[in-house]
Amino acid sequence: MTRPQGIPFTPGTTRNGNIFSPDGPFRMESGTALPSIEIAYTTLGHLNASGTNAVLVCHALTGNAHAVDAHLPEGETIPGWFNGLIGPSRGLDTDRYFVISSNILGSCYGTTGPSSINPATGSAYRMTFPQMTVRDMVRAQKLLVDHLGVRKLVTIIGGSLGGMQALEWAVMYPGCVGSIVPIATAAAHSAWCIGISETQRLAIMNDPAWQGGNYSAQPERGLAIARGIAMITYRSQFSFEGRFGRSGVAAGDGHERVRVFPDVPMSFAVESYLRYQGQKLADRFDANSYLYLTRAMDLHDVSAGRGSVREVLGGVSARVLSIGISSDVLYPPAEQRAIASVIPGAAYAELDSPHGHDAFLIEFEKMNGLLRDFLD
Amino acid sequence: MTRPQGIPFTPGTTRNGNIFSPDGPFRMESGTALPSIEIAYTTLGHLNASGTNAVLVCHALTGNAHAVDAHLPEGETIPGWFNGLIGPSRGLDTDRYFVISSNILGSCYGTTGPSSINPATGSAYRMTFPQMTVRDMVRAQKLLVDHLGVRKLVTIIGGSLGGMQALEWAVMYPGCVGSIVPIATAAAHSAWCIGISETQRLAIMNDPAWQGGNYSAQPERGLAIARGIAMITYRSQFSFEGRFGRSGVAAGDGHERVRVFPDVPMSFAVESYLRYQGQKLADRFDANSYLYLTRAMDLHDVSAGRGSVREVLGGVSARVLSIGISSDVLYPPAEQRAIASVIPGAAYAELDSPHGHDAFLIEFEKMNGLLRDFLD
Repeated sequence: MTRPQGIPFTPGTTRNGNIFSPDGPFRMESGTALPSIEIAYTTLGHLNASGTNAVLVCHALTGNAHAVDAHLPEGETIPGWFNGLIGPSRGLDTDRYFVISSNILGSCYGTTGPSSINPATGSAYRMTFPQMTVRDMVRAQKLLVDHLGVRKLVTIIGGSLGGMQALEWAVMYPGCVGSIVPIATAAAHSAWCIGISETQRLAIMNDPAWQGGNYSAQPERGLAIARGIAMITYRSQFSFEGRFGRSGVAAGDGHERVRVFPDVPMSFAVESYLRYQGQKLADRFDANSYLYLTRAMDLHDVSAGRGSVREVLGGVSARVLSIGISSDVLYPPAEQRAIASVIPGAAYAELDSPHGHDAFLIEFEKMNGLLRDFLD
Repeated sequence: MTRPQGIPFTPGTTRNGNIFSPDGPFRMESGTALPSIEIAYTTLGHLNASGTNAVLVCHALTGNAHAVDAHLPEGETIPGWFNGLIGPSRGLDTDRYFVISSNILGSCYGTTGPSSINPATGSAYRMTFPQMTVRDMVRAQKLLVDHLGVRKLVTIIGGSLGGMQALEWAVMYPGCVGSIVPIATAAAHSAWCIGISETQRLAIMNDPAWQGGNYSAQPERGLAIARGIAMITYRSQFSFEGRFGRSGVAAGDGHERVRVFPDVPMSFAVESYLRYQGQKLADRFDANSYLYLTRAMDLHDVSAGRGSVREVLGGVSARVLSIGISSDVLYPPAEQRAIASVIPGAAYAELDSPHGHDAFLIEFEKMNGLLRDFLD
């Protein structure tokens, strides 16, 4: 399998990608205005003269602008999260499409968020950052897309929070959107998902290191617990069983427990995995951003302030391929079928996968096939 | 619907039920011995002369010995958790059966556990309590059952952790067990369930009030977060959506959030529900017990030290009715079907219910029917 070339870095770009600073303040859905924002982004391929061959890929909760591997000048490679879908002859064919990926508003990978400096105070916003919404993320992306000279997006694709962005694009900018591919997402965040988000936020906010958001060092343990909860919901019972079962890790990993049966491990492999994944996120992601982004997902409802879901999605003119994942417990396939059922002419496809919600970051072969058929 | 009379309290009993103190030390699976234990229990109905009409009901994680309403002398009523299944003409007919319910070892409702006083030190055991297992719980129950003069148990029934006890009874004391009814449980705790337990333990242990288990006041917030995580897994996406959807609670409940859309609430009802349920558990349950009991569930594996699950359950001689719940995400029906498939002559029945794992505490009408057919 050949890998795409990666982002060609040029002087002036950052490890988060290129930076675009729109003119003037950025007014948010809530009515509050940020005095200025920055948007980190990357592109692959070339925009045609008419500006009509662009594709926007939207990342999920903890993603960044590096949809494909980024080779930094220092030799470091930041791994892409959509590698398998982007490149010559892939579903998002970089010989045909100009592929744009940007870090979302409120995140911590180059785009303005709670860890950014508030120019009015000279200090980081932290918990004074205004609550942004998926619609705010999309309006920021629209500024970028306009700036890049794009007149029409061939498609907008994303899973989970990325799928919410795709849906909002189709509602907010119908004239600019040829098609969307929302994957493993919902028209409105369900009570179940809101509840799961809430336990994660509480875990962060109950960490004494959080300090009301004014931490000098990350509330690592709280953020790690939040990630652990999330990792469980991103996979399926079946995939966890196949991967870990009741196997253990050797003593000496720092998590020794009382051994009761000779054949029961001191610590289960799945516990070690969750702690490792938790620490990995705590090492790379801002805890306040995590609070704001999960809250933005909870606030997601395409119908809010617009009528009913049926009315709002019924008015979508873009072509739509709604993709569900058979084993997704967070956004069960019924939610993606419901999206397809109310949008005129929308198609529904299901990834039959044991990997749960995360299948949209794993089942690239199946998605490439679906995308080629849909875009051709 | 008539309710059972409740436990007839007599002088000398406690609010946790009657107390039985077996003679001598209690040696645990781990090899450690507790110098003495106490077991809180209740009974309903009358034991026949041959000691062969007894039924044992086993409670789940945070349950107690009050399977039916207990009317305390002071006028207080402790609500029973199995009311709908126990009483005249119910599945567990108290006109026919002598129904025993006891608080499990390691819990905090009258039976010895981490919050009990260690006679060797005069202080509570707290985290020095030896890790007990489901097998230890069952051996304690056997002492009680013998003490009460029971020679044979007509059946042993329980859901979740209660079902694990029923399975262990059938393996450990075949001569004493006529039948078992394990509900919504597993032959061995899955990686998925272990992971969910682990995030809950971490939430408790990361609460600064936990103090390594030596708290003067409960780590309420950590325990409440653990309960919130658990409550999500006890129900189903479908049931949460029907009950809460995206409805909100009025401002002034202390959880105000930024309102972004006029039609999006300040705080979602599901968040308020999880906080309320969390606080309710923190008000009534010991945090250290929660750590030990979830760990005992993780250690549960009927095959540990005995061979394979197929060999161990293949040797069960008791009649078995294994009951699954269609919407259970913690212990999917496949796990209860698997139990039935390897036990000779075992029957499988499925509760078609939208209520998720908790259906075994809700769907009493359906369970009464299944029990009557099975026990007659």
